Amino acid sequence: MGDKMIKVGVLGATGMVGQRFIQLLDKHPDFEIAALTASSKSAGKRYEDATTWYLDDSMPESVKNIIVSDTKPDDVSNDVEFLFSSLPTETAAIVEPKFAESYYVASNASAMRAEKDVPLVIPEVNPEFLDLIDIQQKNRGWDGFIVTNPNCSTIALTLTLKPIYDNFKINKIYVSTMQAVSGAGYNGVPSMAIVDNLVPYIGDEEEKIESETLHLLGTLNGIDVKEANFKLSASCHRVGIVDGHTEAVFIEFDETIDVDEIKNKMSSFKSIPQELNLYSAPKNPVIVKEEDNRPQPRMDRNANNGMSVTVGRVRKDPIFENNIKYVLVGHNTIRGAAGASILNAELISKKIL
Amino acid sequence: MGDKMIKVGVLGATGMVGQRFIQLLDKHPDFEIAALTASSKSAGKRYEDATTWYLDDSMPESVKNIIVSDTKPDDVSNDVEFLFSSLPTETAAIVEPKFAESYYVASNASAMRAEKDVPLVIPEVNPEFLDLIDIQQKNRGWDGFIVTNPNCSTIALTLTLKPIYDNFKINKIYVSTMQAVSGAGYNGVPSMAIVDNLVPYIGDEEEKIESETLHLLGTLNGIDVKEANFKLSASCHRVGIVDGHTEAVFIEFDETIDVDEIKNKMSSFKSIPQELNLYSAPKNPVIVKEEDNRPQPRMDRNANNGMSVTVGRVRKDPIFENNIKYVLVGHNTIRGAAGASILNAELISKKIL
Amino acid sequence: MGDKMIKVGVLGATGMVGQRFIQLLDKHPDFEIAALTASSKSAGKRYEDATTWYLDDSMPESVKNIIVSDTKPDDVSNDVEFLFSSLPTETAAIVEPKFAESYYVASNASAMRAEKDVPLVIPEVNPEFLDLIDIQQKNRGWDGFIVTNPNCSTIALTLTLKPIYDNFKINKIYVSTMQAVSGAGYNGVPSMAIVDNLVPYIGDEEEKIESETLHLLGTLNGIDVKEANFKLSASCHRVGIVDGHTEAVFIEFDETIDVDEIKNKMSSFKSIPQELNLYSAPKNPVIVKEEDNRPQPRMDRNANNGMSVTVGRVRKDPIFENNIKYVLVGHNTIRGAAGASILNAELISKKIL
Amino acid sequence: MGDKMIKVGVLGATGMVGQRFIQLLDKHPDFEIAALTASSKSAGKRYEDATTWYLDDSMPESVKNIIVSDTKPDDVSNDVEFLFSSLPTETAAIVEPKFAESYYVASNASAMRAEKDVPLVIPEVNPEFLDLIDIQQKNRGWDGFIVTNPNCSTIALTLTLKPIYDNFKINKIYVSTMQAVSGAGYNGVPSMAIVDNLVPYIGDEEEKIESETLHLLGTLNGIDVKEANFKLSASCHRVGIVDGHTEAVFIEFDETIDVDEIKNKMSSFKSIPQELNLYSAPKNPVIVKEEDNRPQPRMDRNANNGMSVTVGRVRKDPIFENNIKYVLVGHNTIRGAAGASILNAELISKKIL
Repeated sequence: MGDKMIKVGVLGATGMVGQRFIQLLDKHPDFEIAALTASSKSAGKRYEDATTWYLDDSMPESVKNIIVSDTKPDDVSNDVEFLFSSLPTETAAIVEPKFAESYYVASNASAMRAEKDVPLVIPEVNPEFLDLIDIQQKNRGWDGFIVTNPNCSTIALTLTLKPIYDNFKINKIYVSTMQAVSGAGYNGVPSMAIVDNLVPYIGDEEEKIESETLHLLGTLNGIDVKEANFKLSASCHRVGIVDGHTEAVFIEFDETIDVDEIKNKMSSFKSIPQELNLYSAPKNPVIVKEEDNRPQPRMDRNANNGMSVTVGRVRKDPIFENNIKYVLVGHNTIRGAAGASILNAELISKKIL
Repeated sequence: MGDKMIKVGVLGATGMVGQRFIQLLDKHPDFEIAALTASSKSAGKRYEDATTWYLDDSMPESVKNIIVSDTKPDDVSNDVEFLFSSLPTETAAIVEPKFAESYYVASNASAMRAEKDVPLVIPEVNPEFLDLIDIQQKNRGWDGFIVTNPNCSTIALTLTLKPIYDNFKINKIYVSTMQAVSGAGYNGVPSMAIVDNLVPYIGDEEEKIESETLHLLGTLNGIDVKEANFKLSASCHRVGIVDGHTEAVFIEFDETIDVDEIKNKMSSFKSIPQELNLYSAPKNPVIVKEEDNRPQPRMDRNANNGMSVTVGRVRKDPIFENNIKYVLVGHNTIRGAAGASILNAELISKKIL
Repeated sequence: MGDKMIKVGVLGATGMVGQRFIQLLDKHPDFEIAALTASSKSAGKRYEDATTWYLDDSMPESVKNIIVSDTKPDDVSNDVEFLFSSLPTETAAIVEPKFAESYYVASNASAMRAEKDVPLVIPEVNPEFLDLIDIQQKNRGWDGFIVTNPNCSTIALTLTLKPIYDNFKINKIYVSTMQAVSGAGYNGVPSMAIVDNLVPYIGDEEEKIESETLHLLGTLNGIDVKEANFKLSASCHRVGIVDGHTEAVFIEFDETIDVDEIKNKMSSFKSIPQELNLYSAPKNPVIVKEEDNRPQPRMDRNANNGMSVTVGRVRKDPIFENNIKYVLVGHNTIRGAAGASILNAELISKKIL
Repeated sequence: MGDKMIKVGVLGATGMVGQRFIQLLDKHPDFEIAALTASSKSAGKRYEDATTWYLDDSMPESVKNIIVSDTKPDDVSNDVEFLFSSLPTETAAIVEPKFAESYYVASNASAMRAEKDVPLVIPEVNPEFLDLIDIQQKNRGWDGFIVTNPNCSTIALTLTLKPIYDNFKINKIYVSTMQAVSGAGYNGVPSMAIVDNLVPYIGDEEEKIESETLHLLGTLNGIDVKEANFKLSASCHRVGIVDGHTEAVFIEFDETIDVDEIKNKMSSFKSIPQELNLYSAPKNPVIVKEEDNRPQPRMDRNANNGMSVTVGRVRKDPIFENNIKYVLVGHNTIRGAAGASILNAELISKKIL
């Protein structure tokens, strides 16, 4: 690709993840926001007029005057290449395939993740799954394509597991999450439910973590993915924190593991996005802290602009000889959502287009 | 014992657990507060003048004018029988044995829990461990004795495990906690550490849960305890909740278990305190909720005056055939501290004295 | 009235204030819940099945099997006397007058407060306004009637002003509130809006405080109310607290005032409900604290079962010679809503019926 | 001054405001951190080893290896020019004058604010008070000097009052604050005091606001300050928010005021720091929001890197004809502390040295 800016759009641009897309794209050196879509009741309005801005930083000046269009392929200009999707699942299921006929869709929605020819990708973990794009285009006769990123909790967990899985024989994993309220959308969690309280249930979350993790660490053979050969069970809980998911991880190995080696593998982990020096790629996808009271969501969620996962308390389990335990924090709406889709698009731009 | 009120005292009466003792003892039908001790700088003052009251209900009128005494056996009246201890560990290690020469000490401190002849007891779980009192008195030549209750997280967990352990073959347990700030004492957790944040570390907590649980579910042979024959690993985290510890529990069994049977065993669980109709004994030590978003600490911590543990999401693990998962909430300063010591004293009064 | 229980109902029984009504009525010695209404989609269901229970204490057993009826006069049994209304404003405007044709309606809704012949009453402040009931019944040809209580912030404020207003010449008042999230209903305030944040706006709240306070402290002449002859300006803010509104009050008097006299008048304040010994009447409507860091919502909201208002920091203004300042806390869904309506009904039962 | 970097130091560098100084100075184009002092127990250690870092962004690399020195003039290198002080009051009272014998001290401590020859300055409000430096140096025979900035709440309030005071005749002000926990230092507010709660008292805060505001808006005659000729009364409250103080302001004028004019004066307000284009000076010291639910601390505290104050709900008081009301949010540890001292130093460097 030359050094011309790539025109991009955001599908579902007024919601919370849509706003993260805009925030992250605003100063992007290669991408330029040229389209913002929302539901028909916002269409035709200036973005500033159509949107209640939820993020701590102000709405970027560059998008205030963009006229929001309806979320329909015909309403989006042809010179847009990538569309970042933060559509609700049901809408995404219907609309994303229509866009994919002519646009490249990098989606944070879960609707299409289960389609065999739609790559579910974390650039540092399974970039080779992007080979499915060819198959997808042939299968479906599309000029565009859809690529998806996993669930927010899965992304953070899998980034920390990748350097372990590549080097040691994992047997079982148990993970217990403490997830931020932003993960449910702006109106998702009433304050009455979370002040001086927590909610020990997040719909479909455990299932996503349990399946997506094994898929991402699996191997692609043609169109088929052979899942990673360990098993994982999750328990998911919502806590009164704005941003940043925390996960307590217990791993059983087949044999005794040296904890320092694990830490070295995690902190030295680099992959294709780091080699290609992609704009949104953090220098270290995984940061290992030695302080015993870290990671903490407010302190660590913004590491490397929210694109690194921070790990701490990596320790040998004193009870189970072949086990280790650790805790991780990842930014759920950056590394776990908008940033994930953007990094996918950056990788595709550099490697495939 | 006749129906005369038993005179009791609280060691460390000005702290948060000390205040819970007072709150729970205030209307007690069998116990009457006759002594309150604190550090020497409070000694000689009226309790009301010596104390910043931290609990939501007001300080009971009955204690306001009690003159606080120094935490020394000679400063406490001889007609006091039971002393409830919420002393800091280091103080407890020195002072409790001195008191035990002539008083009955029911302690929430951890200092003496590891002594082989000091019973560590949850009345519903291992009341027979109180047989150690005889041995303790002989060993040490004491007229009094010390009985202890476990750590707050351990109590809630073990109450839910007891009906399972008695009926099914547990292999392994993983538990991840989300603990309230009151567990660290009034000044234990700065607000800067917990607003929009959590802290994934609580000193010594994991070790206590991992060892005490197996001890409590073990069997007493003379002075020796044979620990329960499964293993347990914990990860402990502090969250911004006033009262009520939440724990996510993963249990591996040796064979496939019927979840409804587990729920039945838990919800129908009754033990000695229920049979003896002890004043502080909850009708059901374990309450099982069917709503998928329960238990929640603010909603469930006060069940049966804070003496029941509430369990929810008891479910077959979809990944591991022989596993179940559930979540529990228990009130950490009532069932997990002051109420635990008081229930111990009630059992001793009824059974032993 | 004899000692037969009075049958009562709750209009809008599944919402948060509806639940408070049920909680407060459950053990009531004179009132017995005989009807619960909700929207038509809940009608016909058992109350337990129709309701997500939001309060910390469990749903009372006594109401679980009551069949919810539609909020229509014909659907409520004739032997019900009092109906407590926690209906949304728009519904209340239409439905309450229909019920009032044959039932006594004690309403927490604001819909009818502005009607000249509908008494707006705090029993300790302006019980004589109940004389309007006669006028109302004649005016409208109703067998029943509607009596209303003010807005939650107004009630707490006015209870503290009454003993001042009766004894000293108030010139101006400024009040700045910090209000709990429960005041907006269960889904009213998203957690994203309030974690590590506050919202400096509550729709219509300032207007209600500014007008209702003067009305309540006014004098009734026939059907006309002559408002109290001072003025009051409010600024209202939402903070991340579950229950309990806090208000900072600045009062300008015409002359210099002795602060101790003010405190005495407030703490010794008693009125008709105390004289009549009404069941829900707190012994002291206003509690004065001397500690400089009180009142606090979590510590003081439940004073006298949530029916007292707690005042602290009553101090001479060091800047304005004729001013005092203080801070108050009142329970917004008990004294400020459900408890207010119930106390109105108790007064009516005792004095009028 | 040439374009050489000015060497600066931070007195009390390990505390929370000390850390803010470091964070703000790290990328500063004119200042270069050359000395960090702390108590003697930290002296001699690397800064990274001496410090528990509290801020959300990581500790800057540039300071990690600086050896902390004791807070004594002899222990700080002579080529340091400015010293930023975040010392505790009692220490500051003793130590700052010693440093001022040879260093320029820009202090956030309150110890010296009351000295008649020590300027208390907000660069946008009363830059001319820096003339006191000459008098101070002569009076005391110092080569260096001390300049101070006001209390955090005062700074935010006074910045919004300056454009009003300069254009309209203010009669009285009432202000009610909702202040973040960071204002009390890392350990200042226990989580038990603030979760689901607030504390209606902050020691000495009301007095500081009431006096400093009038001083800052006053006029300097030689060494004497003639205070602004209105009066102000404050009520201060602590809420569970990490950073960002919110203040509700009621202003009485001598005559009716046009609200739009007030808003224009505030939003167009610029002063010396803007004219001189000082590095830390925000383009607009005061930002006026039109949305009725703003300003909010989490959303607005970081406006212009935390150096602007955001105002909203500027409205005519519907009750008092000559009054306006508004709400403001300012970042208490940036604009209200470290950033204030740095802006003072920038102004001095440009204007005086």
